[in-house]
Amino acid sequence: MKAHVWVMLKPTVLDPQGQTIQRALCSLGYQKVEDVRQGKFFVLDLDGLSRTEAETEVERIAREVLTNPVIEQFRFEILD
Amino acid sequence: MKAHVWVMLKPTVLDPQGQTIQRALCSLGYQKVEDVRQGKFFVLDLDGLSRTEAETEVERIAREVLTNPVIEQFRFEILD
Repeated sequence: MKAHVWVMLKPTVLDPQGQTIQRALCSLGYQKVEDVRQGKFFVLDLDGLSRTEAETEVERIAREVLTNPVIEQFRFEILD
Repeated sequence: MKAHVWVMLKPTVLDPQGQTIQRALCSLGYQKVEDVRQGKFFVLDLDGLSRTEAETEVERIAREVLTNPVIEQFRFEILD
């Protein structure tokens, strides 16, 4: 079983890395790109868990380990 | 219009960052997590493009700017 976890800065938090990419794209001629935000994406391989157990486990991992709750938010999905 | 871009290390390329996270999770008691791979996730805001133009533009941005083709691969989706 696999899980996907997305960790992004909260919408209210400035993303200087994304802004730098946006400006770089603009200077390269991609002027239709108005905003860029960069986040992290994790693929987890899970073994020996039911779907419900996996949801509980991945939610806890995302919340406690992968995300800084002060500035980041996460979402996840479980794949069979 | 928004675009999502995922950039991951190719499956044949070692991911030491993902391995470190996997070991950290294991030491924290999450022993059901057998493997972790970490990638980047970008959200692009696009203005004034048709869906077809956006697909062409985002594909080119992902290929030429966001991805190191030697070790990384990408996929993307366009959202209305």
